[in-house]
Formats: sequence, C-alpha cells, structure tokens
Amino acid sequence: MIFRQLFDRESSTYTYLLADPKTRRAALIDPVLENLERDLALVRELGLELTHVLETHVHADHVTAGGLLRQRTGAKTVVSERGGAECASRHVGDGDRVALGELEIEVRATPGHTNGCLSYVVRDGARTLAFTGDALLVRGCGRTDFQQGDSRTLYRSVRDQLYTLPDDTEVFPGHDYRGHTTTTIAEEKAHNPRLATKIGEAEFVRMMAELKLANPKLMDVAVPANLACGGAK
Amino acid sequence: MIFRQLFDRESSTYTYLLADPKTRRAALIDPVLENLERDLALVRELGLELTHVLETHVHADHVTAGGLLRQRTGAKTVVSERGGAECASRHVGDGDRVALGELEIEVRATPGHTNGCLSYVVRDGARTLAFTGDALLVRGCGRTDFQQGDSRTLYRSVRDQLYTLPDDTEVFPGHDYRGHTTTTIAEEKAHNPRLATKIGEAEFVRMMAELKLANPKLMDVAVPANLACGGAK
Repeated sequence: MIFRQLFDRESSTYTYLLADPKTRRAALIDPVLENLERDLALVRELGLELTHVLETHVHADHVTAGGLLRQRTGAKTVVSERGGAECASRHVGDGDRVALGELEIEVRATPGHTNGCLSYVVRDGARTLAFTGDALLVRGCGRTDFQQGDSRTLYRSVRDQLYTLPDDTEVFPGHDYRGHTTTTIAEEKAHNPRLATKIGEAEFVRMMAELKLANPKLMDVAVPANLACGGAK
Repeated sequence: MIFRQLFDRESSTYTYLLADPKTRRAALIDPVLENLERDLALVRELGLELTHVLETHVHADHVTAGGLLRQRTGAKTVVSERGGAECASRHVGDGDRVALGELEIEVRATPGHTNGCLSYVVRDGARTLAFTGDALLVRGCGRTDFQQGDSRTLYRSVRDQLYTLPDDTEVFPGHDYRGHTTTTIAEEKAHNPRLATKIGEAEFVRMMAELKLANPKLMDVAVPANLACGGAK
C-alpha cells in the first residue's frame, strides 16, 4: 500500500492518503479545504488517481475538501449513512467495503463523538491500520457533548469495534494536539487515560461529563458547510 | 524496529523515536526541550530504555532536550564532531555507527545547512529510513545563510550522501511547515523544486542566495543553549 499521513496545523487534523500500488487508485480520508492544492499535488506527484474521498464524520473544526476534490477529479465522496450529508456520492454503514483496486477499506460504525462516526480499517500484508477519526485518539478520544454525541455510545464503539482489532493494529487518529502521529490498539488498551480497559463505562461517562469544553471556534461554519459537502455540491 | 514520529507545533520540528524490539534499547533523534515529558512518557509506556539521544545538528529554532534527557535517564548524547557541542557524550562523523541492540544507525555527514549536519540511516528488513535533519526536507531543504551554511556544500551532500541511497528510502525530515510527514529519495529526485536531479549546482546556489529569509526568532537563544547541550551539562 502507498500511504501518507498529512497534517493541518490550524485544526490539528490528520488527513490520510491511501493507494493501491498496482492500479494507482487512491483515497483521501478527511481532507481539509485549505490543503486542497497540497493534497492534489501529492496525488499527482505520486502518479495516483484519486477515486474516493472518505469522511470519518461531519467535522465541527474544519471544512472538508471533499466536494471540491470531487469537482476537480471526479472522485466519489463517501460519508456515513447516518451523517446527514445528502450531497455525497455514496453513503456507507457498518460492514460496507470501499475498493481501491486490490486494496479494500472496511467500514466500521463507531458512533459516540457524533452519531455518524465511522472508522476505516485496512489490511496490508501483515499490517492492520485503523483510521479512527475522533472515536479514538492517541491517549484520548473525541468529545461527546454536541452533534448527537453520547459517551456511553462512544465507550461501546471503542470496546466493541476497535478494541476487538488485533493488538498490533496501527491506529491513525483524526487529530492530535500534542504531536503524536500514531498509536496501537495495545497501547490504548493499556495507557489511554479515559479508555484503558481497566476503566469501566460509568467512570468514562463521568470523566466525559466533567470536561466542560468550549465549542470549536469554527463549529457554526464547519458543520453546515460539511453537511453541504464543503460548499461544492 | 519500533518507530515513532513526533511533532513540535511551535517550531515545526520532527522528533523520532527508534528502538530495537529485542533489547528495548531506544534512541530519540532531535528531541525538543518543551516535549521532554511527552517523550519520556512514550518511552516508558512502550517499555523502552532510552540509551541515546542523537542530534542532526546544532538547531537555531528550538532548544534540545538532550542534556536533560541524559540527566534523567543516563542516555548518551550524540552530536557531530564538527558541531561544537563539547558537552555531549559522544562526537561522531561520517561512517560512524551507533548501536541500539541489534539495530544499527549509520552516520552520514551532510553539511551545508550547518557545517556539522548529520543524517542518520537505518535499515530495518527491506526498509531503509533516512533521518535527514535540515539537509533534505519534503520538497525543500534547510537554509544555508548562517551557522557556516554553504549552498554548494549542501548540494553536494544531498547528491553524494542522500541521493545515493536506494530510491525507495523513506526520508524523515527535521521539519515540515506544510503538514507533510515523510517522502522518499525517488520523490525528491523527481519533484524537489530546489534539488530535483535536473537542477544543476549553479541554479541551486542562485535559488538559495535569493531566499533572503529573516533569522529564526529563537536563534540567539537556541544556538548557545544547544552548544551547551540544552543548558543541562
């Protein structure tokens, strides 16, 4: 697999480029509008054809490049069937598969941060990679206090849909605010301060209720824009 | 090999954690003072023993955590024999090797950004990884206008010491300012706007002379601090 992790400093968002080396078909996961030209240049320089843009969820902190990438390249935009972005090319749910040539992306529903959150799982030889959006972060997780967020649901998503992956699964999160780039399922089971396996559901729910975070500064702009495929239907 | 890329948002510096999975011996390349606790926590959580801290050069934009990491863990600090940081545990030059258990780090002298710049090359099965500091960045390179920088020297370092590595060598730079995390030798040979193989030495020297960049804001603090091992001799 051809694979690149890309970072947006403004929103601390990670974007991922995945491609099948044989057919050169490529997908971007969670591309950010402001980085459209950077990401298109990389696709071009690597000799790839962008066929899919996948969203892990309707973001509240940045506007997706999905709609514009579809306009520019013909790539299909892929979102959750529970996300509300009607304008997307394809709506997927738990157990669906997205094919990039010989590379297969498995969809896992991991709601809780929002009700439409998806994780994407890819197997590449002996490696398993999980793109977890805001469901599971490095030593953290997404907040659960808006966009139909629910901490009990998130707890169960992580336990049932992510911690059931092999321990050496490489986890690639939707964000990181402290400079981590990746982690593994084993590490999060052992060291996640909210979601280590020793922490019960009630304790997790209490911790999440106590966070009392301010809303993301772009929320009122980003959520409606993302429901409209980034403003480029 | 156990491998992690870490990012410092303030200075856009990449720090790398490398470890031998058998002996659990680990090295940090270019750790940043402000991230000392983050990096020590990761070493601890991964069950590693920090034995070496390697610098690619005397940085002008951040203060190294090297000296304090040595105090805290007993790790050896490793710097260029041409770098001027007398306080370091070990001074290395081109062709030297640093052993982490069964993992070997090869030192390549790649001066030009500073006169003491080093790159570190690691082979892990079929993979070759090069930690190039500021000699070679993703679609760029370090500036050459201070700290004994010299653009002719940098051009020759990249051509003779880096572009001679296998084309599929994964390049991990000392910085990135646009959200890229890695590249390959083949990509830079083809697409680096300053250092693609089609660009001659004279043209490179002219491009570097025309940059006229402001000095790094931390330069007057960082260079003396780094010559003193981050202020923790």
